[in-house]
Amino acid sequence: MQDNKPLVSEDLERVGVTNLRTIVLTEWKGRKYTFTPKIELTIDLDRKKRGAHMSRLVESITETIEEEIVLRHGSIEEVGKSILERLEKKHPFQKAQISMETDLVISRKTPKTGKTTMESYGVFVSVSYLGGAYRKTLRVSVMGNTVCPHAMEQTGGRTHIQRAETMLELDTPYDNLIDLEDMVNCVEKVFPSEIYSLLKTEDEVYVVEKMHANPKFVEDVTRGVIDAARKRFPGCGIHVKTISQESIHRHDVIAESRVEA
Amino acid sequence: MQDNKPLVSEDLERVGVTNLRTIVLTEWKGRKYTFTPKIELTIDLDRKKRGAHMSRLVESITETIEEEIVLRHGSIEEVGKSILERLEKKHPFQKAQISMETDLVISRKTPKTGKTTMESYGVFVSVSYLGGAYRKTLRVSVMGNTVCPHAMEQTGGRTHIQRAETMLELDTPYDNLIDLEDMVNCVEKVFPSEIYSLLKTEDEVYVVEKMHANPKFVEDVTRGVIDAARKRFPGCGIHVKTISQESIHRHDVIAESRVEA
Amino acid sequence: MQDNKPLVSEDLERVGVTNLRTIVLTEWKGRKYTFTPKIELTIDLDRKKRGAHMSRLVESITETIEEEIVLRHGSIEEVGKSILERLEKKHPFQKAQISMETDLVISRKTPKTGKTTMESYGVFVSVSYLGGAYRKTLRVSVMGNTVCPHAMEQTGGRTHIQRAETMLELDTPYDNLIDLEDMVNCVEKVFPSEIYSLLKTEDEVYVVEKMHANPKFVEDVTRGVIDAARKRFPGCGIHVKTISQESIHRHDVIAESRVEA
Amino acid sequence: MQDNKPLVSEDLERVGVTNLRTIVLTEWKGRKYTFTPKIELTIDLDRKKRGAHMSRLVESITETIEEEIVLRHGSIEEVGKSILERLEKKHPFQKAQISMETDLVISRKTPKTGKTTMESYGVFVSVSYLGGAYRKTLRVSVMGNTVCPHAMEQTGGRTHIQRAETMLELDTPYDNLIDLEDMVNCVEKVFPSEIYSLLKTEDEVYVVEKMHANPKFVEDVTRGVIDAARKRFPGCGIHVKTISQESIHRHDVIAESRVEA
Repeated sequence: MQDNKPLVSEDLERVGVTNLRTIVLTEWKGRKYTFTPKIELTIDLDRKKRGAHMSRLVESITETIEEEIVLRHGSIEEVGKSILERLEKKHPFQKAQISMETDLVISRKTPKTGKTTMESYGVFVSVSYLGGAYRKTLRVSVMGNTVCPHAMEQTGGRTHIQRAETMLELDTPYDNLIDLEDMVNCVEKVFPSEIYSLLKTEDEVYVVEKMHANPKFVEDVTRGVIDAARKRFPGCGIHVKTISQESIHRHDVIAESRVEA
Repeated sequence: MQDNKPLVSEDLERVGVTNLRTIVLTEWKGRKYTFTPKIELTIDLDRKKRGAHMSRLVESITETIEEEIVLRHGSIEEVGKSILERLEKKHPFQKAQISMETDLVISRKTPKTGKTTMESYGVFVSVSYLGGAYRKTLRVSVMGNTVCPHAMEQTGGRTHIQRAETMLELDTPYDNLIDLEDMVNCVEKVFPSEIYSLLKTEDEVYVVEKMHANPKFVEDVTRGVIDAARKRFPGCGIHVKTISQESIHRHDVIAESRVEA
Repeated sequence: MQDNKPLVSEDLERVGVTNLRTIVLTEWKGRKYTFTPKIELTIDLDRKKRGAHMSRLVESITETIEEEIVLRHGSIEEVGKSILERLEKKHPFQKAQISMETDLVISRKTPKTGKTTMESYGVFVSVSYLGGAYRKTLRVSVMGNTVCPHAMEQTGGRTHIQRAETMLELDTPYDNLIDLEDMVNCVEKVFPSEIYSLLKTEDEVYVVEKMHANPKFVEDVTRGVIDAARKRFPGCGIHVKTISQESIHRHDVIAESRVEA
Repeated sequence: MQDNKPLVSEDLERVGVTNLRTIVLTEWKGRKYTFTPKIELTIDLDRKKRGAHMSRLVESITETIEEEIVLRHGSIEEVGKSILERLEKKHPFQKAQISMETDLVISRKTPKTGKTTMESYGVFVSVSYLGGAYRKTLRVSVMGNTVCPHAMEQTGGRTHIQRAETMLELDTPYDNLIDLEDMVNCVEKVFPSEIYSLLKTEDEVYVVEKMHANPKFVEDVTRGVIDAARKRFPGCGIHVKTISQESIHRHDVIAESRVEA
């Protein structure tokens, strides 16, 4: 049925499965990781075929995952490429793309008391195949804050502060080795201050004073991350978006920009 | 089929329709309102019946809404009671409940420059029937902020500030006339400062200084709203929950409490 | 402060306000509509300016909304263009974009019993200004279903059926008059069957039989909508995405494609 | 500051931290599990104290998690109880509650071809302390489907089918050992058919035919799960809610009930 002539003759950019959850195991620089990502796997569909054989897409995922139990992949993108390579043997395509969205938890030390905290970040890793070449998109979402320099100037030092979240996305050939943790660090250092799950009084004072010494608009954060990413990840396409959840407004403010690879 | 003996003999607390969107028109104190609420309408189901006649529940909603075009109801809860009364003629029940969740937009003036702003609030109105009597639950969700008094004391005036949201819920007999706008005001006045969609520089300075003059923990906000609601709405069951989106942490902090009617 | 030299010299694609809710009133073909959209308004920011004057963006929205109470605009995109024109007098920009996301409720008749139902659709309207010209993007999200032709063939008539949602997006110059209701109809007719909030037994039988007479994969739905949109809205850029919430899987299936203007 | 007299003298039911993400490691029946739950930890607050020492709540979490790296707990609820016991030494309370919300992935075999699939379930585990005793709440959310018996009868075999999700929640003393996987199985067997991430044609035919042999309303599913849970988990408080995402309507249908412990 899927190989029949379709009702409407039209090439489709991408068809496949989405919002599929499974377990992904990796071993990156000697540390083992377990993720439960939400996966999307799609291929292009020629105008001569009515449908994709969706179960072959799922099989490429489940067979790769099964194999992982004995053989850990080195990174999330390595899992993705493995799935695309397996799919190639099961189903024809010109283009294919797999994305995995999950959480990354990183251990930190609090700034003054040196206690261990666990900090979580949203990550999104996508691998695409086109014309014999693999590319990847790596994205991290990092929480921080904005501190209004305008209000600070107007009031002689008092200001409004709020939680902000910055998304940094890199687009690059598959072989360019990039550490998601480096991407997180690259964003975190730009905020008025890093934030922590645990802050004892001494730490809290340090963070509050650092925020006031370093006030930034949402525009400053986005520009700072672009600047840091350009230096740290040369040659990559860069996409940065910051959303600040204003404490004096019901709406959010946004600053977004892109740098071509 | 619905009137058949069920596979398992068991009374069900509530069965019905949920996440149904439609238009609701009201006229409250001479002003016309249009809402597009998400509606849930449920009844209890006796162990002798396999299923509810769901289309009769939907019909009670659509017929009431159709009638509204000529006859505006006075309030959202009046629409709810109308739907329950109509349902009573179509389908047997011992208990029935309808809830409507929507947004309420209220016009305000900015604190210093007196400009018009439009502020939005989440509202939830539920009417229930049991044993011949109607009760209602009214809920508003209001955005504001928290300003940490502990950090302010430790640093000699600097602190962390963040967006917070407080939910105030009242439970009371149907006939107790309560204005949702009064509930909103009751919450808004407790925050370190009210917030506005529009703030010119002069207004922003006013809000920032008010926040610093009036620092509050999440616990202070919840207690303040309980206190204000007890005075303003005597005899009602009161439920208050505040969630503060910390600017120095990735997690939120919460303070919640209830006062019996 | 906003006009100062930024910390990092970098042009920003877009900065502004997002997730702002307000009331929008329109009068389209003689009928009055009230919406409570979520609004995003952004402009580009030159590398010489540290920040945008965000309050001027909000003012452009609130002043346009205030005016509406006496003067209803003809469409959501007319409201958007009005806001951009007002902003032009308050704040310099090279590019500007406003988007409004809301629900549209349309009255229908059930297929057999002819009863009135109210059906709701997600709509998104965006107007952008660049180089003296205005363009718009119109998007509708319509619920329907998919009915697996493969299972039907394998079992001799039985199959799995599930809810699906199709997004149709058109990109076109501002002056191209397009009715959102036409876009909705264009999608709805492609599904195996239209769906309704209210279905009496006779209507339900009609819908179930129509679905079985007309089985479609997610790929069929996306192709059918592209085909219908190309005929109905010639010259527009077309983007279609269908997601089917499989009743036999935990994941969804997706088919997406684009046609250049 | 937190130990000061509050602005309003009022006992608070619960104050604490919410939406905190971290890593939780367990070893249940010899298998190792890694979760990244969303955590909420709250305590009651006496009317004499202005605020809770929130950092002590977070410390109880992070210290327990740190310890886990060497010492795996046996279950999610064991992690929860450990955190409450640690908190007791740091901060006074009368009542305390911790909840953890995460995903559980279970390996299955497809019904006919016997291939391995990975199926995911939402789980929520809460442990509460009150008056010297610990209780727990265990919740699983399981996807399946409903198949309308009414339409099937009316049309002579054709019907509408849709994805449904059932939540089963048990309330019981902490020491009552319950396997989340048993709870999942208890729900899954009640649906018209189990669902799978991977289905080859033979499997798909089996599932479609099982669904048609076994049509169920949303009410049937909820009653079936109550019945199964009462037999499988005697003495527990039981709460069941099923939501069916109708393929012939835009809204969902719901059936919910509770059985006292």
